Amino acid sequence: MTRHLLSIDDLDAAGIHELFTTAAEMHDVQRREVKKLPALRGRTVINLFFEDSTRTRSSFEIAGKWLSADVINLSAKGSSASKGESLRDTVKTVTAMGVDGLVVRHPASGSAAQISQWVEVPVVNAGDGTHEHPTQALLDGYTLTRRLGTLEGKHVVIVGDVTHSRVFRSNVKSLTKLGATLTVVAPPTLMPAGVTAWAQAEGFATSYELDAVLPTADAVMMLRVQRERMSGGFFPTAREYTIGYGLTRDRLSLLAPGTPILHPGPMNRGLEISPDAADAADSLVLDQVSAGVAIRMAVLYHLLAGEPDKTEVIG
Amino acid sequence: MTRHLLSIDDLDAAGIHELFTTAAEMHDVQRREVKKLPALRGRTVINLFFEDSTRTRSSFEIAGKWLSADVINLSAKGSSASKGESLRDTVKTVTAMGVDGLVVRHPASGSAAQISQWVEVPVVNAGDGTHEHPTQALLDGYTLTRRLGTLEGKHVVIVGDVTHSRVFRSNVKSLTKLGATLTVVAPPTLMPAGVTAWAQAEGFATSYELDAVLPTADAVMMLRVQRERMSGGFFPTAREYTIGYGLTRDRLSLLAPGTPILHPGPMNRGLEISPDAADAADSLVLDQVSAGVAIRMAVLYHLLAGEPDKTEVIG
Amino acid sequence: MTRHLLSIDDLDAAGIHELFTTAAEMHDVQRREVKKLPALRGRTVINLFFEDSTRTRSSFEIAGKWLSADVINLSAKGSSASKGESLRDTVKTVTAMGVDGLVVRHPASGSAAQISQWVEVPVVNAGDGTHEHPTQALLDGYTLTRRLGTLEGKHVVIVGDVTHSRVFRSNVKSLTKLGATLTVVAPPTLMPAGVTAWAQAEGFATSYELDAVLPTADAVMMLRVQRERMSGGFFPTAREYTIGYGLTRDRLSLLAPGTPILHPGPMNRGLEISPDAADAADSLVLDQVSAGVAIRMAVLYHLLAGEPDKTEVIG
Repeated sequence: MTRHLLSIDDLDAAGIHELFTTAAEMHDVQRREVKKLPALRGRTVINLFFEDSTRTRSSFEIAGKWLSADVINLSAKGSSASKGESLRDTVKTVTAMGVDGLVVRHPASGSAAQISQWVEVPVVNAGDGTHEHPTQALLDGYTLTRRLGTLEGKHVVIVGDVTHSRVFRSNVKSLTKLGATLTVVAPPTLMPAGVTAWAQAEGFATSYELDAVLPTADAVMMLRVQRERMSGGFFPTAREYTIGYGLTRDRLSLLAPGTPILHPGPMNRGLEISPDAADAADSLVLDQVSAGVAIRMAVLYHLLAGEPDKTEVIG
Repeated sequence: MTRHLLSIDDLDAAGIHELFTTAAEMHDVQRREVKKLPALRGRTVINLFFEDSTRTRSSFEIAGKWLSADVINLSAKGSSASKGESLRDTVKTVTAMGVDGLVVRHPASGSAAQISQWVEVPVVNAGDGTHEHPTQALLDGYTLTRRLGTLEGKHVVIVGDVTHSRVFRSNVKSLTKLGATLTVVAPPTLMPAGVTAWAQAEGFATSYELDAVLPTADAVMMLRVQRERMSGGFFPTAREYTIGYGLTRDRLSLLAPGTPILHPGPMNRGLEISPDAADAADSLVLDQVSAGVAIRMAVLYHLLAGEPDKTEVIG
Repeated sequence: MTRHLLSIDDLDAAGIHELFTTAAEMHDVQRREVKKLPALRGRTVINLFFEDSTRTRSSFEIAGKWLSADVINLSAKGSSASKGESLRDTVKTVTAMGVDGLVVRHPASGSAAQISQWVEVPVVNAGDGTHEHPTQALLDGYTLTRRLGTLEGKHVVIVGDVTHSRVFRSNVKSLTKLGATLTVVAPPTLMPAGVTAWAQAEGFATSYELDAVLPTADAVMMLRVQRERMSGGFFPTAREYTIGYGLTRDRLSLLAPGTPILHPGPMNRGLEISPDAADAADSLVLDQVSAGVAIRMAVLYHLLAGEPDKTEVIG
């Protein structure tokens, strides 16, 4: 594995599978009564979040603490950044304290990679603008692999606000490396410019017709509609979105029996996903959350544990 | 003890006394130089606060940490809740990470009980709307018991904004179970509708005349005036409130010598309680704070410790 | 050492050097892979911050955690203080929980000393208004001492918004005790009233002419311009400030080769310090940050460790 986790580009298929193997071991720890491994004892991880996030921040915090790391949360609110400090100075200051790793969320695309060039410690991208969110894609891939056995040759349908979704960008790369074929479904105005060339390069299909695609899905991944980005006449209204692209109760019947349903959360129930879909027996939404901690433990472990032979520590 | 602590209804007198016994042991730990028990090592407790709170949140955080738990603070500010996620999804997401217990504060009455039906882990109600705040009542009862020996047959006078007070609601149940007789004193407009029937059912007395009641008190519990809820012509002004219902210097002389004074904090000095009362030798205000950590350690211990025989762990 | 650290007045030269000795040992720990000493295990430190701060708060948090203390962050936002509670009640409440030490930042000058009179536990001043910020001065003195060997007879030039700077006030006392001679350079409108008498009493020189002073400097300490305090016609504009008092690229050539440059951060690059100066080989800005954790570990250690013989614990 590389020194940082900035993008799914940092991993090849073997690297992803190696992370999944560690995550599976971590997943077992998670089910224990005493959830604590000594692997990162005496290491300090900073959660440096320039955007609000409950779910991702706390998932990383729990992952770090279960590995016995000291985890420090720094939010951009009330931070030196608001006093006119440059991002570079903020980041170099934080790492100068003697920390061992940075988990970064930032609203600017590319910021995680930029930050990694300024510091000596491993950087984990916890979401940078509309660019990537690699641990989310890894937990999605892990969850799907556990459910489907393998993703080789499986057809994953990704539905929603593709233009603004870093989750989508990371998943395209990750799921493709894992052997899945992808179809991306979105309203025309939420399909990114140049998607045709992109789809050719990455090898995914696109469609505006959800109903036509759903019957062929081995898994459906619904993306969150980011309502705050959808003002203006070009975008569908919430009602139009649901009618055309929501995973409604009626559409569930288009799926083959047992087709798993994913959503990265937080869900807009009634908008992109109906309660019937969110709470269906085949919904993996909570499995994704649970896997998130295991994946983040695995990532922190691989990047930060001094001992390359993990079997001693975990075993 | 029940699986959750949502209301004082979850405890009978024996259960309360059992908690007090554990709290007394915890209280001894609190006075040690090394305040640390291994009881909850490897367990993770989430403080899920949808309302601001310094005092209660940090009291639970300290309690958890002294029991060696990992404690994660999640505040509703900047949370997924503000992105349109339902309370149910927020709660199920948090617990899906693999946590062992939830401490919840929420502005909606009944929310703690609702949440407990959605999750598999113990839930502690840290205040739900105007409904209940059971650990506050337990620490009040514990503090009073230590001071008075027993509450059997003791007359406790509770004064203040009864209508809006979850502290009051929990204390009525708890102090009554502990054998105390209660008189509730409030201005007519802060006495809840239907108080007569309620008083009959629960067996407490009511009065609008503080001066007449104080001489018979074995203990006085002042409630916080929540000024933000008292706009409008029906409510007394701050000055009227103090004249009629504040524990002023003059009123202290109406108390029998040694009568203990309680207040859950934060105090509005000069409004419902005078500095002379707050800082009196018989004020138990800081004892309540100290007992709060011990009670919360006891509650977390009883709900979360895997080992039912606590003597081994604590001893 | 005294019981609290409220001001540099609490320390004589020997006390400062003793802290530096401990800090050097802590600095070594900071470079280890496993950064963890057992010295404060089972002790609880509260970071009680009534002003926003990322840098100082997290530096203390890391320092406490590396000493194995439980560290609880309490911010004034959303605190009882905003519900009308007095500062005294807030502080007494926090300490009544059973904590072992308070780290306090507050916008009112003198607040740390006031707080120390209310509580039984050690108080560390992490910045009180425009009064003092002793750990910042100690880390500055420590950083300079490591660079220059000794400060005896060394000429330190301090430049900037002297009127509003608690960093300056603490440094005047600290650097003087360490044997340095000081020249304070500021625009006339940012030089405090009565500076002549003050300079005579403390034994420092003043100047309005940065270019005349720089060639004689053994070290240059730039202060942060607090732009929010500089509205109004009396103050220089940002551009005027930079021209007269900024450490610009041109001014670097006035310094003797190897003259170290300090800044407490956060820096206004392009205002009081140019990128050329901030990133110069002789810039100690990040060394200051690193030393900050070591100094705060040393302070917490001296104030809170039960065992007076530290060699056993650290060794």
